[in-house]
Formats: sequence, structure tokens, C-alpha cells
Amino acid sequence: MAQLIADRRDVDFVLHEQLEVAELAKNSAFTEFNRKTIDLIVNEARNLAIKEILPLQKISDEGCVFDAGTVRVPEAYHKVYKNYLDGQWLAMGDTPEWGGQGMPKPVCLAASEYFHGACNSFMLFHMATHGAARLIENFGTEEQKNQVLKNMYAGKWSGTMLLTEPDAGSDVGALSTVARRNPDGTYSLSGSKIFISGGEQDMVENIIHPTLARIEGAPEGTRGISLFMVPKYRIKADGSLGEFNDVVCTGIEHKMGLHGNATCSLTLGGKDGCIGTLIGEENKGMAAMFHMMNEARQMTGLQGFANATTAYMYALDYARQRIQTKHMTDPADAGPAAIIRHPDVRRQLMIMKSFVDGMRSLIYYNGMIQNRCQLSDSPEEKERLKNIEEVLTPIIKAYITDKAFEVCSHAVQVYGGYGYVEEYPVAQLLRDARVFQIYEGTNGIQSMDLVGRKMGMKKGAAFMAYLEEIRSTIEKARNIESLRPLAENLEKLLGSYTETAMVLGKAAASDKVLNAFAFTHPFLEATGDLTMAWMLLWRALVAEPKIGLKKKDDAFYKGQITTARFFINTQLPVTAGRLASIRVMDGAAIDMEDAGFGG
Amino acid sequence: MAQLIADRRDVDFVLHEQLEVAELAKNSAFTEFNRKTIDLIVNEARNLAIKEILPLQKISDEGCVFDAGTVRVPEAYHKVYKNYLDGQWLAMGDTPEWGGQGMPKPVCLAASEYFHGACNSFMLFHMATHGAARLIENFGTEEQKNQVLKNMYAGKWSGTMLLTEPDAGSDVGALSTVARRNPDGTYSLSGSKIFISGGEQDMVENIIHPTLARIEGAPEGTRGISLFMVPKYRIKADGSLGEFNDVVCTGIEHKMGLHGNATCSLTLGGKDGCIGTLIGEENKGMAAMFHMMNEARQMTGLQGFANATTAYMYALDYARQRIQTKHMTDPADAGPAAIIRHPDVRRQLMIMKSFVDGMRSLIYYNGMIQNRCQLSDSPEEKERLKNIEEVLTPIIKAYITDKAFEVCSHAVQVYGGYGYVEEYPVAQLLRDARVFQIYEGTNGIQSMDLVGRKMGMKKGAAFMAYLEEIRSTIEKARNIESLRPLAENLEKLLGSYTETAMVLGKAAASDKVLNAFAFTHPFLEATGDLTMAWMLLWRALVAEPKIGLKKKDDAFYKGQITTARFFINTQLPVTAGRLASIRVMDGAAIDMEDAGFGG
Repeated sequence: MAQLIADRRDVDFVLHEQLEVAELAKNSAFTEFNRKTIDLIVNEARNLAIKEILPLQKISDEGCVFDAGTVRVPEAYHKVYKNYLDGQWLAMGDTPEWGGQGMPKPVCLAASEYFHGACNSFMLFHMATHGAARLIENFGTEEQKNQVLKNMYAGKWSGTMLLTEPDAGSDVGALSTVARRNPDGTYSLSGSKIFISGGEQDMVENIIHPTLARIEGAPEGTRGISLFMVPKYRIKADGSLGEFNDVVCTGIEHKMGLHGNATCSLTLGGKDGCIGTLIGEENKGMAAMFHMMNEARQMTGLQGFANATTAYMYALDYARQRIQTKHMTDPADAGPAAIIRHPDVRRQLMIMKSFVDGMRSLIYYNGMIQNRCQLSDSPEEKERLKNIEEVLTPIIKAYITDKAFEVCSHAVQVYGGYGYVEEYPVAQLLRDARVFQIYEGTNGIQSMDLVGRKMGMKKGAAFMAYLEEIRSTIEKARNIESLRPLAENLEKLLGSYTETAMVLGKAAASDKVLNAFAFTHPFLEATGDLTMAWMLLWRALVAEPKIGLKKKDDAFYKGQITTARFFINTQLPVTAGRLASIRVMDGAAIDMEDAGFGG
Repeated sequence: MAQLIADRRDVDFVLHEQLEVAELAKNSAFTEFNRKTIDLIVNEARNLAIKEILPLQKISDEGCVFDAGTVRVPEAYHKVYKNYLDGQWLAMGDTPEWGGQGMPKPVCLAASEYFHGACNSFMLFHMATHGAARLIENFGTEEQKNQVLKNMYAGKWSGTMLLTEPDAGSDVGALSTVARRNPDGTYSLSGSKIFISGGEQDMVENIIHPTLARIEGAPEGTRGISLFMVPKYRIKADGSLGEFNDVVCTGIEHKMGLHGNATCSLTLGGKDGCIGTLIGEENKGMAAMFHMMNEARQMTGLQGFANATTAYMYALDYARQRIQTKHMTDPADAGPAAIIRHPDVRRQLMIMKSFVDGMRSLIYYNGMIQNRCQLSDSPEEKERLKNIEEVLTPIIKAYITDKAFEVCSHAVQVYGGYGYVEEYPVAQLLRDARVFQIYEGTNGIQSMDLVGRKMGMKKGAAFMAYLEEIRSTIEKARNIESLRPLAENLEKLLGSYTETAMVLGKAAASDKVLNAFAFTHPFLEATGDLTMAWMLLWRALVAEPKIGLKKKDDAFYKGQITTARFFINTQLPVTAGRLASIRVMDGAAIDMEDAGFGG
């Protein structure tokens, strides 16, 4: 098989040609990350992913084992877990103060594409730990940070996020876990949490659970929610482990996929009392949660993308290997041929490639603007970059995970009957990918975030900053003759998009608000299409001047133009139709009587 | 739970109000099937489905067991298998000559919706038997029919279809199973077949395998393929069972879903010699196969539809039961409410309902035209109806199974995190449904059939007959004031559709043929959308005069208008965009250099 997981040539293209990530080395924060170092890092990540993590994928599907309150991960995880930590990958992008490697974000994301593309179930343990550590780093007291951060970033201890309860899913404000103040300033928690990724496991010495709960007497809803740090084992003053803290795992879910990550139900304080310390202020838990959630949403997009990129590589390889008779579509050359010669297979590969390429550019770019924001001296520029990130977050979470599922489904179709058989790798990728559309805020919630919060945020300034970036790419492409028709088609779509955004925004602010919110998901899809087209046109812009320079690179660079052409000329007319449908904004979904749905 | 599997009110609506199936009783072939009898049949089917077949669904997911050449189905199947046969459901639509019940097709399809919607894995055993029996009834010799048909239609013996081989999937012509002529007129077969649904099982005494093979010396490709009847146990002159016929099951597949139907690998004639008798003429196997395939494709559409209808019923019920806090979209009434109040949930339910309703009408209607064709005295009318069926077949197979998978995926999304957990029913429905897009000819193949064969068939007469039916519904709807805007919107879309069909047809007949065939699947999707809109408008036409007559039916009838409005005003603009994309017919997918795909 030519190359597994991610297409290295394309990873390099985005890092070095589209984003010029090594330019960050001019800044003192990143001096050591020149091109050579970055390439070494990506090499190492790719090796670890292919040689050690990828073999876990099939094994992971066998699932974790729940046994009397304990959870055993697949035996093969343990060695790789250790090697992943030894390579210091867990905190690759974090501050050296707590043991991080301080790498530029796009490089971390490239490494993560390899890791997650190899085995998302295994990587989710690390991802959860990292998210919890970041939360404590940003909102914890010095004491809390000193207690846990080094062990967490080193992966000796893991982390989770205790949010969902049986009757509080998307509706976080309904949660009923209670915290009672103790005289010593700690809190005693009791309640039940579900859907906790890595809530219990046997690869680490301790587990740190950031936990949402309501302090006795606090207001109802989200305004009365506080955040606590709850360890599995209590932590003594000298940092060593004390008593069991009464966080009991009562079971793990039997899921459609992602079997290799334990989704746990936990009971807090059932017996001996579960002690937690407050993170941040009382009743302000949601703010910290949302901060962390933004990162988690971006990482969920990466998870989806990673499945898509692996699925594409497999499907492409299969289409090149699988010999069948040519169909009537090319009678002049009717001998046996690989199915990549079939127009309908090529159509599917082009869809997959354009999404995967566009997703890669978008995700790495989003990392790049975070670094630029961090490095910038200009408050206006910082604000502008932050604004773009705000708009991109729901797109990365929802659009990418929706399309990733479609890409995996195309991979199954390209494999034909073999795609449905678990002996081949694509069925598992499809099953695993389905949850990304649900967790960390369903994609419906993301679409409400885009229209209800991001579009109007700062009087529209965030949204404008995003649109301005697209316009700037269009302007550049217009100056290159071979790209002008594509630039003009995208500009036309952008016009229709902004018109639609205004129609939708106006409706959302009127008494037609319910009706408008039946169109947020289609609008998010259109926004994602627009973003993909932007990324692909930008790629074409980078590739165009390089065509003809080196023969061995020609197919690659020409492929960038052809992919942009495919997406802009074949997908965007459908997007235009979707925008037209939003502008019609028929109220049928709201007008329907409940009884009219039948049943 | 209000009502499981299929919505009975809607089943009755299609049977009696939209299609007026009891009118068939005026004809001597169907005299006994008046409304009362039909209702009794549907009652019985529904009872059997809910009480006996539905409990098999969860069990079926545990899978069949392969053990040294034998296959054990789940233990619970045996009793229900017997009850299904005792109810004489297997041959409900077939001729009494061979033990059939001679029911009208739409009634059979309504019963099948219940059965397949309850457990598709279990039903596929019957479906395979029925398809094989129909093949032998249509193409077998009198001797063959006498040997097997009564036992098959009674379900004492089962049937399969031995078509696919490891290197001959979509490319049937590449098959390498060989048949050698024996002096007694029989043939000795040897070869390997894969993906054989129900190829081995323990519910029946014998299994009849219609088998595609190439007679020694026959031409290559599809022109040299013959069809044979190959029993698992040889059949003696008196009809009793003889020796084992050397059809050896070597394993079953571990699949993404549909675990409760064994997908077998079979070796023919490895040891003792496997004897078959010719069905039809030598080298004419493909014609018989295609005849049978048409029925199999229609039934595959029914399988997908059945999963969609069940998934919709579950999601609707869940959306009505699941209480969460209302979102900001309705601040005036912000207390806890069922999630069916959320606009984005309603949007998904409307998508599901419009597809499920449209699919039901389409599938039953397709059954109705087959009965009408059979009863008609006019050769022109017979031809016309046959033409419509020809065009509808790839739509039913491909469009319905594509959209069924989407409907099941929406059901998972409506369930949120619970949707991903196998304890709830929708995850399995999604996994089970994925194969329908692949088997009986991938949906890519179906799209080639639509554009490459059906569109040009009989100088376009088949396609014209189909379009004429749509036009006739539009004309009727135009005369009803409240439906006129919908009729006009559909008419506009139809105009754009026929224009696109001409552009595509012209390209397919030119040197742009490869390019054209990269757009057959989008064209099939547009054709399906058009067909759904037609069905929904027809429903609205039937419902409209009944609004206000009986209070208890009002929500149902108004719901028909609202559903048509939703689909025509919200979905068709997207379809129009897809048609525009086809007319652009960008050649990127063909122009792409193979190396440009990367990897």
C-alpha cells in the first residue's frame, strides 16, 4: 500500500507552501522550529503512527472490558501508551513550564492527523487528558496546577470531563449533581455522570475529573453551575496518592464504534464521599467549560478529518489495485483495468479528495491563526484573528464531522461488498466517525452557535473578518488568468451567501425566529462549502506558479487546480441551490402540527 | 411507544386513498381482495411483525455461527420461521398453482414493509428464497419446477443466488466458475462464490442455488455465461433428498451490520463433484439473471425503505418523549419541553417524514402498476406501464437506499448520544442499512443503468412515459388553488430536469461520454428528488379535499400538504442546484491525472 493514513506530500504542501509555518521561527517563541526540525517532527509522528498506533486500530475494535468497577483497555495499548508519552507527544504544543514542547500549532495538528488517523479510540484517551489539563492550566489555582499539571501533561495521570448526565445532554443547565461546601473549603460531590470518555482505565495511576455540579442553594439552569477538580484518588500534600475518592465506574457503553475508548458511567460520592476543589469562581463553571469546549470542538473536527483522510487513502489505494472489466464508457479500451478508471469511482474520489484537502488546509490554518494571534503585538490584529477562529470553530466541529462521515461512506462504496466486511478497514472508520457529529455539542447545536452567536458577535465584526479573508483570496486568484473563472464563480457564490446571511440574520431577529432556526444547519453546510472552496482556491493559487518547474511535482500541483475546479464548478452550484432554499425559508417544519408527524 | 415499525394510518392512506388498491377486486384475478380482506391481511402482517419478528432484531445482531461447514442461525429464528411459513406469507403474491396466495402487489409490499421493518436480517432468508423460486418459475423447465417450486414457496427448501466471485463483483462477466457437460445432460460445476446471502443455514431441509457459470469453451465475458440450478442435496426422482451435492460453505463474513443473515463463501465441486441442471439456454444466463435482478433491485429498495420507516418511527417517538430545556429560540415559553419543539429537530423529522412518505408511495405504486400491467387487455397500456417500471427500478434501488441510510443517520442524530449506543435501536438500523447501497448492483451501477439504458430505451419512450405521469399529477394539482404554487414550483423543476436530461444524454452519446458518466449518480439523485416531489404532491392532491371533513383526520391530511410544501420549497431548490451542476458538466474528475489523486 503506497502510503497510509495521511498523504505526506500534501501535509508538507499545507505546512510549508500554503501556510509557511517555518516563518514562525523568526519569532523567539519558535526559533528552534525551522523547516528541518519540523520535517523531522512530522517524520517521527508518521513513524510512530504507522508502526505502533495503526496496529492498534483493529484491536481497538474488540473494545475495553468492564469488570467490577474497573476498565481494562486492550492489552496492546499499554506499550504504545508508554512510547507515545516517551516521545513527549501529549503536550507537544504546550508550554515548557509544565513539561510541554512548545511546538507551533499547525505542526501539532499534522502530527495529530497521523496519530488520530491511525487509531482515534486510542488517541481519545490522550485528547481527554490534554483538554482537562488545559482547563486546569487556564482556570485552576496555583495549588491545583502544582498538584496535577506536570503529571497530566506527562500522561502519568489522565483527565476527563464530567459534564453529561442522563437527563442533561445538550441541555447542560439541567444537571443535578450536587456539591456541598465543607468547612475546609473543599466540596463533597454526589451525582451520576454518563458518556465519560476514558472515565475509568488502567493505563494511569490517577484520573483527574473536571466536574460540573451545582452548589447547594445555587440558581437553576446554567447560571448555577460550578466547576470542580475531582481526582480518582485523593492527592496528599506531598503529591503522592491518598484514599480512593469514591468516583465509581458503574459500566461502559456498548457503542456503534470507537469501541477502543471506554465510554463510562460514573457515580460520585455514593459511599465514602467524593471530595472536589473549586476551579474558578462559584456559579461560573460554564464560562470555563465553554473555553475548554472551543478547543474540544476543534479537536473533534480533527478527529473526523483524521478518519476521512485515512478512509480516502485506503479507497484510493483500493481503486488503484482492484481490477475489473472496463465498462461501456470507454469501448475503445475495453480490457481489464483498475476501477480508478471508472467515471463514477473518480467522481467519488474527487469528492473525497476535495473534502480531505480542504479540511486539512482549514484545520492547519486555524492552528496557524492561533499562533499568529499569540505572537502579534497589535491588539487589532489579535482581535481580528480571534474573530476568525470564533467563526471557524463551529464549521470545523460540525461541517468537518458531517463531511467526514460522508467521506468514510464513499470509501465503503468504493470498496463495494468488501467495504461492508469488517476484515477491511473502511467499515470501522465509518462506524467510528459517526459519534463526532454528536459529542462536544451536536452539529445542530453548532449550527445554532454559528447563526445565533457568531454571526451577530461584536456587531458582526467576527463574521466580517472571516468574509474578508475569503475576499482577499478571491482577489489574488482573479489576477491569475487560469484561475480567474474559478475566482469569479466563487465570488458569485460569496455574493449569494452574504445575501442569504442577511435574510437569515434578519429572520432570526424577528418573530420568525423559530422558522429561521430550522435553517441554521443548511446555512452551516453552505458556510462549510464556501470555506472549502476558499481553501481549495487558495491551494490552487499557491500551486499555479509552480507548474512546469519540476516534472516530478507537476501532477501534484496540477491536481490542486483540478481539485479546486471540481469543487467550485461541481459542488458550488449545489451550494447555490441550498442558499436559495434558505432564502425561500418555507415555514413547513414549524407549521407542521405535532400530530401531523404521524406515529 | 405509540406505534412501531410503520405508520398504519399512512399505510392505509397509500393503499386505499392514493392507490385505491381494492379497485383491483373488480378483476377476476383479485375478487376476494376487497377492502375488508386487505385490512385483515395488513392487521395480521402487523401483528406477526410486532409480536414475533421485531423481537428477533436485537438477537439477530449477535450474528450467525459458522461451524465446520455448517451455519447456525440464532436459535430464536426457528419458531418464527415456522410461524411465518404457516401464515403462508412467503408466496403471498405468487400464483396458487405453486402454493402462492395471489395477493395484489401493493398489499404484499405493505405486509413486507412491516416484516422487513421489524428484522431485515431474518427476512432476507425469505427474500432470497422467493427470488430464486421466481427465477426458476420464469425460466426453469417443467421438470425443474416440479422438483423444487412447491417446497421453495412453502419455505421447506430455501433459495439463494450464486453470482459474485472474489474477482467478479460488479464485473459479472469476469466470473470463472466452470461447468462441464456430463453425458446425461447434467453439468459438473466447480468454482468459488462469495457474498452469498443465506448460502448455508439450518432452518431448511435443502437449499437451491441458482448459479452463474461458464460452460467449458464458452466465450469470455457476459456472452458466455449460463445459469444452473444447483441443489445442496441432490433430488431423487421421487422428490426425496439424495446425496450431498458438494456445495461446501467455507466461512461467513463478519460484516458492519445485517449480522443475522449469513453471508457465505461457497466452494462448488471441490471433492465429490457438484451437479447442476441448465436453466434456460446455454450462454443465455445473463438474460434470466437480469429479469430476476429487476425484482431483487426493487426488493432491495424495499429493504432500505423498511429501515427508514422504522428509524423514523423511533426518532419521532424519542423526540416526543425526550424532555430538555427549551432553547433561546422560544424565550416566551422557556420551560422544559420535548425536543420535538426544537426547530432543528423538526427539520430533521420533516426530512425523514418526506422521504419515508414518498418512498412508501413510490414502492406501493410500483407494485400497483405491475398488477395493472398484468391485468390490462391493451398492449399499449401494458407497454406504457412496463416502461414506467423500467425507469422506476434504478430509482427504487439506488435513490431509496441512499436516502434510507441518510434517514437512519438522522434518527441517530435525533437520539443524540443515545443514538450511538447499541442499547437503543437506531444504531443497528444504520449499520444494517449500509449494505443496501452496495448489493444487487451498487448504486453507481444503478445510475449507469438509468442514464445508459433506461433514458434511451425504446427511443426514449420509457422515459417519456415516466415524465408523462409526473406531468399529469402537476396538471391536476394546478386546478386546486391551495396546491397551485406547489404545482408550479414542481413544473419549473421538471423543466430544468428535462433540459438537463437532454444535455446529459447528448454528452453520453458523444466523445464526452466519460465525462457524462461522472454525472450519472448526481442525475439519479435529482431524478429521485423529482420522483419524491411527484409522490408528495400526489398525496397532497388526495388529502386536500378531505381537510375539514372529520376532525380526527385533519392533522393527518393537513400534514400531507405541509410535507409536500416542505419538500418542494426546501428540497427542490437544492435539486435545481444539482441539475445546474450537471449542466455545467465540468470535466475535472476525468481530467485529473491518476498521480494527481496523491497517495
